[in-house]
Amino acid sequence: MKKHNYSAGPCILPQEVFEKSAQAILDFNNSGLSILEISHRSKDFVAVMEEARALVLELLNLEGKGYEVLFLGGGASLEFLMVPFNLMKVDGKAAYLDTGTWASGAIKEAKHFGETVVVASSKPENYNHIPKGFTIPSDADYFHCTSNNTIFGTQMKSFPEVNIPLVCDMSSDIFSRVLDFSKFDLIYAGAQKNMGPAGATLVVVKKEILGKTGRTIPNMLDYQQHIDKESMYNTPPVFPIYASLLTLQWLKNLGGIAAIEKINEAKANLLYTEIDRNPLFKGAAVKEDRSNMNVTFLLNDEAHQEKFDAMWKAAGISGLPGHRSVGGYRASMYNALPIESVQVLVDVMQELENKI
Amino acid sequence: MKKHNYSAGPCILPQEVFEKSAQAILDFNNSGLSILEISHRSKDFVAVMEEARALVLELLNLEGKGYEVLFLGGGASLEFLMVPFNLMKVDGKAAYLDTGTWASGAIKEAKHFGETVVVASSKPENYNHIPKGFTIPSDADYFHCTSNNTIFGTQMKSFPEVNIPLVCDMSSDIFSRVLDFSKFDLIYAGAQKNMGPAGATLVVVKKEILGKTGRTIPNMLDYQQHIDKESMYNTPPVFPIYASLLTLQWLKNLGGIAAIEKINEAKANLLYTEIDRNPLFKGAAVKEDRSNMNVTFLLNDEAHQEKFDAMWKAAGISGLPGHRSVGGYRASMYNALPIESVQVLVDVMQELENKI
Repeated sequence: MKKHNYSAGPCILPQEVFEKSAQAILDFNNSGLSILEISHRSKDFVAVMEEARALVLELLNLEGKGYEVLFLGGGASLEFLMVPFNLMKVDGKAAYLDTGTWASGAIKEAKHFGETVVVASSKPENYNHIPKGFTIPSDADYFHCTSNNTIFGTQMKSFPEVNIPLVCDMSSDIFSRVLDFSKFDLIYAGAQKNMGPAGATLVVVKKEILGKTGRTIPNMLDYQQHIDKESMYNTPPVFPIYASLLTLQWLKNLGGIAAIEKINEAKANLLYTEIDRNPLFKGAAVKEDRSNMNVTFLLNDEAHQEKFDAMWKAAGISGLPGHRSVGGYRASMYNALPIESVQVLVDVMQELENKI
Repeated sequence: MKKHNYSAGPCILPQEVFEKSAQAILDFNNSGLSILEISHRSKDFVAVMEEARALVLELLNLEGKGYEVLFLGGGASLEFLMVPFNLMKVDGKAAYLDTGTWASGAIKEAKHFGETVVVASSKPENYNHIPKGFTIPSDADYFHCTSNNTIFGTQMKSFPEVNIPLVCDMSSDIFSRVLDFSKFDLIYAGAQKNMGPAGATLVVVKKEILGKTGRTIPNMLDYQQHIDKESMYNTPPVFPIYASLLTLQWLKNLGGIAAIEKINEAKANLLYTEIDRNPLFKGAAVKEDRSNMNVTFLLNDEAHQEKFDAMWKAAGISGLPGHRSVGGYRASMYNALPIESVQVLVDVMQELENKI
């Protein structure tokens, strides 16, 4: 039976990415060698890295605008500390918006480096919305926000205008919607949602913001070092980067971010409409901040849980239980999840209504 | 034609690892899902992580001896700074042995943290040997060495007896030879030689040495945090860890480290014997410190280079050119390289001799 994979990440990727990457493990580019056994300095892999870096700029419409693209190891959580290491001045300060677990993790790391101003937090309401109307200190070294909150199902629909560097953790919604990415000075994202499998981290940084802290940065944590070495300062995570390239190629062939945005909006519209219509369910996040990537929702009556769980499992759906911080359900609908899978879920929700 | 892959890393892995990991990308454990799209918190992947961590202790004969095993992202180069972050006291000092490019990289990072004593260096002789007869300050917080020097083809055949924590970068020879691993307090290794593909880093640490520095450690760089979260503090590099597990299973089925050590010795013996016998070649490293993993050698007369290069390429050999720091050739003979591949190289060397 076909699976409908709602996993929050690592998550569903396009079928052609599975097929092509499996083939590359058996024989990469008809070289007689596996992608797993070739040197990262080999011509074939250098070409992969170059194409992946260029394709990111193309898809984000950032070509020729002073940005550099890095594919690093360590995960987005490592960026939580690389950001202050590279951008927070000695005796400087940084401003953060606290919109969820990952934003809060980034704040925790920043505090190791210096004054960390939390401009607003939705924690008292269990992060069910994006705070608004906050003031960002104009003398902060940068402002950090999280564009989409995987666990709580909220998403920033607009970003503040600031005249300090704007840093954004886009781990769970990059490449999913059209934004003016040139408003951001540093974007980072773990690969394992819309970009590829776990093990690679994307960093897109405007070169001019670097080198201003007066801080000594260990080489491995220094963006400039990685830029100087064209994202090969050390052995990069070869296979995760290759699978990311395949995913980016798939997105480009589909029509890029503008095309996938339409599909993502249709999927979100389909599911949120059902949540609002169906008397058995309610959404967990406030409507205006609802995420198009991670849809969090609850049963109004938990007595129906056992029945509902059995029904969606029987329909081939996996990965639907909500994070323990919210409970209920979370339908993660990343780029590669087809709208047909959303229809299957909606059908199950309607079937539950009919049965009760 | 069959390829003989002498790549210095990422490098050859067992054929069954390629086959099984490609299959898991198409369908993991008959789940109908790819290993690339499942949650790292899913039962199936948690089982992978647990088995991999346990198998490392079993293969290194470290079970029940107070060690913890972590599979991290970021590469061994990230350990260059995690080691001093976790082990060098505030106002403390560390002792390092400088045996090559990577040892020197580790020293560079340690200097960001405090006094870094280089007890000896073979740099003046282009790292063609392992320094001996050095003194390690007994008041250092730890002693750091590199067991095998990939670029220069040298290998430590014994390790100093110290009463401070002994830290070793075993990236390029872990799991290749029998050692009393309980003499080490912290071992780390990039996966991409004897353990798996690029993208995962192994850390084996004796718990009792942690928590003694008085230093504030960012969470992502704190071994204790990773231990507390059973190596899932953040999303781990799922696929590289799975392929590493397959490689470790292969090694166990082969008879473990004792069995592969015999094969590695036979391979090294075969090639070094030919280098010493064949008047056209000479070894690059001093004999007593020769590495069984990376055999560096040179033509006595560079005029034969073009002919030799054409011949080994025609024989299906790849990855043989030496690192620019040494020149000549480097035959990396990691665990998965069969002795038949070494015989092919020796045959080519003899053929060259016959032709000249």
